[in-house]
Amino acid sequence: MAREAMCPLLWIAAWALLIHGCAAGQAPQVLSTRNDIRDCSADPPYLPPTATNTTVHLAMLRGIMRTQGVHAYIVPSTDAHMSEYISKQDARLGWLTGFTGSAGTAVVTQDKAALWTDSRYWTQAERELDCNWELQRTTSIESIGMWILKVVPAEGNVSLDPFLFSIDTWNSYSQALHGSGRALLPLETNLVDQAWGDQRPPPSSSEIYSLPAEFTGSSWQEKVAGIRQQMEQHVQRPTAVLLSGLEETAWLFNLRGDDIPYNPVFYSYTLLTDTTISLFVDESRLSAAARESLGLSCPGPLCVELQEYGQVSAHLHRYTQGNVTVWLGTEYTTYGLYRIIPQGKLLEENYSPVMMAKAVKNAHEQEMLRAAHVRDAVAVVQYLLWLEKTVPQGQVDEFSGAQHIDALRWAQEHSRGPSFQSISASGLNAALAHYSPSNGSSRTLSTREMYLFDTGGQYLDGTTDITRTVHWGEPTPLQKEAYTRVLMGNIDLSRLVFPSNTAGRTVESFARRALWDVGLNYGHGTGHGIGNFLSVHEWPVGFQSNNVPLEAGMFTSIEPGYYQDGEFGIRIEDVALVVEAQTEHQSGEETFLTFEMVSLVPYDRNLIDLSLLSPEQIRYLNSYYETIRAHVGPELRRQQLEEAYTWLQENTKPFPVSSAGTTTAGTLALASLLSMLLSRLGA
Amino acid sequence: MAREAMCPLLWIAAWALLIHGCAAGQAPQVLSTRNDIRDCSADPPYLPPTATNTTVHLAMLRGIMRTQGVHAYIVPSTDAHMSEYISKQDARLGWLTGFTGSAGTAVVTQDKAALWTDSRYWTQAERELDCNWELQRTTSIESIGMWILKVVPAEGNVSLDPFLFSIDTWNSYSQALHGSGRALLPLETNLVDQAWGDQRPPPSSSEIYSLPAEFTGSSWQEKVAGIRQQMEQHVQRPTAVLLSGLEETAWLFNLRGDDIPYNPVFYSYTLLTDTTISLFVDESRLSAAARESLGLSCPGPLCVELQEYGQVSAHLHRYTQGNVTVWLGTEYTTYGLYRIIPQGKLLEENYSPVMMAKAVKNAHEQEMLRAAHVRDAVAVVQYLLWLEKTVPQGQVDEFSGAQHIDALRWAQEHSRGPSFQSISASGLNAALAHYSPSNGSSRTLSTREMYLFDTGGQYLDGTTDITRTVHWGEPTPLQKEAYTRVLMGNIDLSRLVFPSNTAGRTVESFARRALWDVGLNYGHGTGHGIGNFLSVHEWPVGFQSNNVPLEAGMFTSIEPGYYQDGEFGIRIEDVALVVEAQTEHQSGEETFLTFEMVSLVPYDRNLIDLSLLSPEQIRYLNSYYETIRAHVGPELRRQQLEEAYTWLQENTKPFPVSSAGTTTAGTLALASLLSMLLSRLGA
Repeated sequence: MAREAMCPLLWIAAWALLIHGCAAGQAPQVLSTRNDIRDCSADPPYLPPTATNTTVHLAMLRGIMRTQGVHAYIVPSTDAHMSEYISKQDARLGWLTGFTGSAGTAVVTQDKAALWTDSRYWTQAERELDCNWELQRTTSIESIGMWILKVVPAEGNVSLDPFLFSIDTWNSYSQALHGSGRALLPLETNLVDQAWGDQRPPPSSSEIYSLPAEFTGSSWQEKVAGIRQQMEQHVQRPTAVLLSGLEETAWLFNLRGDDIPYNPVFYSYTLLTDTTISLFVDESRLSAAARESLGLSCPGPLCVELQEYGQVSAHLHRYTQGNVTVWLGTEYTTYGLYRIIPQGKLLEENYSPVMMAKAVKNAHEQEMLRAAHVRDAVAVVQYLLWLEKTVPQGQVDEFSGAQHIDALRWAQEHSRGPSFQSISASGLNAALAHYSPSNGSSRTLSTREMYLFDTGGQYLDGTTDITRTVHWGEPTPLQKEAYTRVLMGNIDLSRLVFPSNTAGRTVESFARRALWDVGLNYGHGTGHGIGNFLSVHEWPVGFQSNNVPLEAGMFTSIEPGYYQDGEFGIRIEDVALVVEAQTEHQSGEETFLTFEMVSLVPYDRNLIDLSLLSPEQIRYLNSYYETIRAHVGPELRRQQLEEAYTWLQENTKPFPVSSAGTTTAGTLALASLLSMLLSRLGA
Repeated sequence: MAREAMCPLLWIAAWALLIHGCAAGQAPQVLSTRNDIRDCSADPPYLPPTATNTTVHLAMLRGIMRTQGVHAYIVPSTDAHMSEYISKQDARLGWLTGFTGSAGTAVVTQDKAALWTDSRYWTQAERELDCNWELQRTTSIESIGMWILKVVPAEGNVSLDPFLFSIDTWNSYSQALHGSGRALLPLETNLVDQAWGDQRPPPSSSEIYSLPAEFTGSSWQEKVAGIRQQMEQHVQRPTAVLLSGLEETAWLFNLRGDDIPYNPVFYSYTLLTDTTISLFVDESRLSAAARESLGLSCPGPLCVELQEYGQVSAHLHRYTQGNVTVWLGTEYTTYGLYRIIPQGKLLEENYSPVMMAKAVKNAHEQEMLRAAHVRDAVAVVQYLLWLEKTVPQGQVDEFSGAQHIDALRWAQEHSRGPSFQSISASGLNAALAHYSPSNGSSRTLSTREMYLFDTGGQYLDGTTDITRTVHWGEPTPLQKEAYTRVLMGNIDLSRLVFPSNTAGRTVESFARRALWDVGLNYGHGTGHGIGNFLSVHEWPVGFQSNNVPLEAGMFTSIEPGYYQDGEFGIRIEDVALVVEAQTEHQSGEETFLTFEMVSLVPYDRNLIDLSLLSPEQIRYLNSYYETIRAHVGPELRRQQLEEAYTWLQENTKPFPVSSAGTTTAGTLALASLLSMLLSRLGA
């Protein structure tokens, strides 16, 4: 699932990359002018029934802004941890604007209000916003800044909550207003929260638990020791690492929670120093086992001191009075925390050492992720078989399909539900790369159109994410060609051999070339990291400019696609592990890497035009199918899914390699027959 | 010729990229420990006879440093325009250290002196430095900074000439010393020049001339109008553009000079404002025609006011007192000029609009570059023919070979000599990607080893650069495989179809994949822009991270290679033009690009292993050879070079395409014969 991914400076949606211009080689596109569904100039204004009346909420916020002397207030869509998914109590943008998309920014003044969002969400925004809101069809901070300069008088105050903006985003706003006379004021009291008052959902109170030892790659003490070793070896000798990404703390302590949908994390911060460990969390929510695990070595350098979540700023302030250096990841630390630390006491890198350590899975973590993908493949194969039988009867729609695959995953061992909201899109709906069906307004699957499903599971041993696109009838020539070329891209990148330390960005074009060859392309990124029972989009692995170089032990999705507006959408997504490659030659000390496929589900034979594939691509495909048979076959039998087993055998049959080699074999056979005949004739 | 190229922040040698880690996907390499040729601990110290005694020069500099209160003085290898090649009067590093390599940095204190350079130059530095100098085998500013912190006491003054350092380099030094108590002082009087005194070579006094109209893409007035239009349309409304790159001024005014070897430029700056044009240059050197051309429209907005070269700082200072905004390219503007402009009056982009305009050649400029390459191909074909005949007799060495191809180029119409020092390297010498032979110590070419020549010409209509690698005897299997894979890389990148606005960095791996497949690679960049009778390395086009996205009308070299230490070296370099691609499908408004080969010389058939090539690669090669025949053949005939013409025909014969198609034809023939026989048997 490539739906969300991080562009430089911000957690921004991958599908928005065409607009942001941060996909490989993509320049910003000229935006087409389009009509709004809403007609706010009509009398009375026309609004679709899905619009939310925001007049009261806006009036409340404006009242508070007046008392604070704020002329414009900026409201983002993320939380204090720059999370990709947020909890209900952080859905400030939705409460204020009515817009429920996952990416957007609102700016409110006394007489104006505007929402900025990317093309994935334009239709949704038009359906959800009322006429209080202008819709701005871009997300560039430059554009937001220009709007502010237009509507806020010089000497005006522009304000935001510094704990909801990354360092870079703050800098961009600061830059946009620089020299204009308008001040950018960080206000630690969140004005939307004040307006929201007691209507705001309470924070989660569910249990935070320790992962059983069998599901961890190493103990939290080993992880802490590893990070401290890195601190000692760093040339700048940091005395502490500050963790504000929720995955960082969850991974470090082998703890999980469910504060955020689909991501088993919990609200927390960690300050790991050379001698102490402070975990900022609601202590009462820790399970007894978790509390015990954290307190085993108290007092001492491996004693985790529990502190209130809200105390992180004060603690950090006190800590940085001393002769210390704090190491943090600038890509996801908020400006609110950052500005507490004096400039000379900062060690800034894009990602913290915890993020980097988490990205390279050790042998046990690799085994777990492989195992989770085998069980996940069972669910997906069952789903494909079920679709094949039920779709022709017209009994499945996008929504019931999504429900069915979720259920199939839940039935697998160690399942903890889906890893993101299932994308289940038929026909033209799949051309909206971002599309999730809702009950009641969902398209019926049919043998007359293509169907794309992009789904994944959370298992105690690993997180999965896979996309398959299928057609049960007669695909058009363009559909077949586009599907085959998307598949060729997936294969070309998957079988690439490349030097260690290669940046993903420099090789992701291999996933696009087969499409480029005939003038096709896709507008999103090509892949993202994935966790062990953590996020389905795990930074910093992937193929974008802000991803780190590929290393053995990293997992990434590989997911080229093609989208034909108003007609169909194709995506083929697999998760792959970066492994060392065995090469014919050795050049110096350079080692080479390649990918090992971890997702194990065959592609739709009905959509493959074999004549487009090179012999090498076909051989790769056949070898991949052998791997699928070897790993998923036994698991299907173990689960006594005989019909699915038969389906798998049928769908992983080797393809004929129409290479020169094969043809030569045929020629040889003919020639020997001929020689036999000739000798007979001679006789 | 990829010898020199610019890494982020600095003009740094492309061959040094392995060390700097800015080639695609290259991480910094661990440097091997090696013994110095010098033995400075022996008594008396051992020095090779090539070493220069620098004691007197150092003493002179140290005396001046003492009077200025400078504890450490930093001396770079470049000039005030961040030129890749420099004139003799800017060879400060050579005068001070004895080291004559093109890239390095020296730091001198009262009792220590050290030189930093990259691996290309380690051997040369050991041969040229005396025992006054430590050799530091890296070029990172971090390393220089750490050395300074070690040898300069706290409160010490570290100084440099701000007109010899780019903005980014200054910032890096500033960062490295930040908070250490040591001050970084920009001293506008260059201390080396003071020490050098009247021994310093005088500035060039040769004529600066106008290009004849037939050799320009457009008049300088049209160019100025185009830049002013961009200024008006820019959202930040700059009032002036500051040009400090020598190519910028030369291109803008269609003027040329010969202040710098191989590059037909002259010392100058330009400040182009919305209403005035100031050209800072030694007015007495302008030819009468040049002076007339510049003064045609005086007074008025298209009048070029001539000012003294040395007045640029004072003029810029005066100009920026007003309500102005100065647009400049940060990649190559010096800190000395930059710091004159108040922060709020700067418009900083990586490259000035002149650099960007120069990079996209118009139709006439394209035609001129194509024509220059046809004549250049004639010279190279003549050279290959001559080598074929004379090498077996043992009469050619690297140096005489280089002289011969230079002479062949001089004989071509519009020639103005070589565009860089010819690289002519036989056997193991070619494994040093940077290698130019010198008279007397040059290796004899032989049929027993490979020979690489990387050469280019300056012509009034265009600059050329081409590398061919040949073997007249029996190549080893590895040589043949490596050559073929380098060729496959050249072909794969050359025939790539990609969306417009793709960054070179995201596609350059296509030139490496065939090598990567078997564990081979090369440590330099894959290509660079090239000018119309300007620099052989023209920014900002190319495949590195600081190059701009590819656009139709840009020219770039494509030059993969492979280097086997101590044995042989391979490089295949062509210049290509970015053109629009005709694709089978259209996806939205995205246009696609591809390359058109402009270099027109066949590859060595003796080194190509056809069995490694795909049918598509062979077909591409055959079509390229057809183009060579069509363009170079007639020119050879026109020049009455019949023997070369015959050689060309022989060396551009189509290769057999051993594709499935061909084999199928054979099979069909057999099958029909068989059916005939069978019918006879039946009869």
